[in-house]
Amino acid sequence: MPSLSVNVTSDFVTESVTPLNTLNESPKSSRTQMELLIGKIQADFVRALESFESEKVFKIDRWLRPEGGGGITCVLQDGDVFEKAGVNISVVHGHLPPPAVAQMKSRGKNFPDEGGKLPFFAAGVSSVIHPRNPFVPTIHFNYRYFEVEVLRDGNAERVWWFGGGTDLTPYYLNESDGKVFHAALKTACDQHDASYYPRFKQWCDEYFFLPHRGESRGIGGIFFDDLDTPNEEACFDFVQSCAESVIPSYVPLVEAHKDDAFSDEHRRWQLLRRGRYVEFNLVYDRGTKFGLCTPGARIESILMSLPLLAQWEYMHEPEEESPEGRLTAVLKKAREWL
Amino acid sequence: MPSLSVNVTSDFVTESVTPLNTLNESPKSSRTQMELLIGKIQADFVRALESFESEKVFKIDRWLRPEGGGGITCVLQDGDVFEKAGVNISVVHGHLPPPAVAQMKSRGKNFPDEGGKLPFFAAGVSSVIHPRNPFVPTIHFNYRYFEVEVLRDGNAERVWWFGGGTDLTPYYLNESDGKVFHAALKTACDQHDASYYPRFKQWCDEYFFLPHRGESRGIGGIFFDDLDTPNEEACFDFVQSCAESVIPSYVPLVEAHKDDAFSDEHRRWQLLRRGRYVEFNLVYDRGTKFGLCTPGARIESILMSLPLLAQWEYMHEPEEESPEGRLTAVLKKAREWL
Repeated sequence: MPSLSVNVTSDFVTESVTPLNTLNESPKSSRTQMELLIGKIQADFVRALESFESEKVFKIDRWLRPEGGGGITCVLQDGDVFEKAGVNISVVHGHLPPPAVAQMKSRGKNFPDEGGKLPFFAAGVSSVIHPRNPFVPTIHFNYRYFEVEVLRDGNAERVWWFGGGTDLTPYYLNESDGKVFHAALKTACDQHDASYYPRFKQWCDEYFFLPHRGESRGIGGIFFDDLDTPNEEACFDFVQSCAESVIPSYVPLVEAHKDDAFSDEHRRWQLLRRGRYVEFNLVYDRGTKFGLCTPGARIESILMSLPLLAQWEYMHEPEEESPEGRLTAVLKKAREWL
Repeated sequence: MPSLSVNVTSDFVTESVTPLNTLNESPKSSRTQMELLIGKIQADFVRALESFESEKVFKIDRWLRPEGGGGITCVLQDGDVFEKAGVNISVVHGHLPPPAVAQMKSRGKNFPDEGGKLPFFAAGVSSVIHPRNPFVPTIHFNYRYFEVEVLRDGNAERVWWFGGGTDLTPYYLNESDGKVFHAALKTACDQHDASYYPRFKQWCDEYFFLPHRGESRGIGGIFFDDLDTPNEEACFDFVQSCAESVIPSYVPLVEAHKDDAFSDEHRRWQLLRRGRYVEFNLVYDRGTKFGLCTPGARIESILMSLPLLAQWEYMHEPEEESPEGRLTAVLKKAREWL
């Protein structure tokens, strides 16, 4: 099987979702290319994170979806360094449920008004890492390829796009970490289009925002959706650069802070911020909402993003001049990092 | 001020939201009657719960809303018996935001299609009690009166209704507790209409359901909305009976189990179930969703319902024959209690 650019049997954590012979039938299609990419990204990240743990390893679940496709979910829980780490890939197809179609139309997708269900294909990698030490930030990334088949003037037409992003949620502000993180994303973006980093940085600030709290989830990163220009290959290459920048942008932060000393007060603040993380994911996150309304979705994979523990205290407000207050000020008003 | 049926200065936890002289101008209106009822219900419940605590007392916040009205929020946190207890009343008016109008129309409200904002008034009491001991259930209740002013054929018309309910979320199944609790609700219902308990019990089972988990939040109770028959006075009397049944239905359960011995495993299960509570409240709860989309809403009062701590573990499934498994079986399939 020399036509595939990735060795599925050694570069994946387990066998691919789509059977190998099916992948080999169309090695150059975006579907195949994306499945190979996300499988390798998952395996590389899982191995990088596991290297920090003395005993715990990722639980690996390969699952199939009755409606079509499936996924591979990797979760490590209660480790030395990672309290909860989830790295998930999914390759699913079937028909879009009407709420999902409505959601897509509401953000401008020009689907014909058939009133029925649309055939779709989606392949993506999604990960949220909640470390134990409050001085190590939480990271989230998600990169996905989407296809919908629409009928236009009686002909089936493939509408495709890419979406995704990487963003950081620190519990304490560290100027240098924030800069290193954003610089890594800018480098990935700049290889493809100089307008990407500023546009997608702003989009990220707008997307990961909790209106009911008047604050951002974290210090941002990049976020984009509906990317279909200049062409399919260029979009894929860009997504690949972004996904490959995750390890170099995050692992050094884990290395640097995993053994930082912390107190019960630091831990309490971390749990309170995790409460906000839960609020964002359950109330606003597009991927979670899509998952919750998709029949046959694997709920444990969708909600692996939630932290092991989260806390809500009534009227907790940090003092302005405290480290907690300084983080809060940045969350209230997004800033430039570079 | 002999015309008011409740002594606001001694029967409330603090001064009423609506100024006393305004209440005195229309002592018999549903608006006034409801504010008096919820103020007294709040104060009685706060005092009943505080009697269990050796040191902690409720923090009482009276707040006003720039758009009109306000509320009184009482929260006790980190007590001996109650880990987090919130009892809130609000009396708000202004204009309904379009998403709230859409939500009401979607459940059948026949509002004329003006496309604009509708003037509304709402008064309600809402409470969630998360005890420390895993053998004491969490209780939630909410009783509310709603008015919307619509223009029909050029005339302003007051559309009013009552809604609410009480429901129980145990962490461990106790047959006798479940029966006592449901019996108290049935007694309150039966005084008014023999069809209420069976109808509102079923409605509760349907409402407090998490489709993405395929399970109920707890063992139910009663739930109703849009109640406007047979007449305003009868509806108010019914709501009063329900609200007054909270203390006799719940306080004995606290008394009975607050000192039960429990292990780390019981605590862990309690926190996992609280994770589901968070999921329900943020994803489905009508009141929370209404609050999150209402400009100027007091977010700390809306989210006081969230527990102090909640936990999410990947793929945690209790064994069928364990106490945790027996609760889960009841959550998967609602049952009759009486």
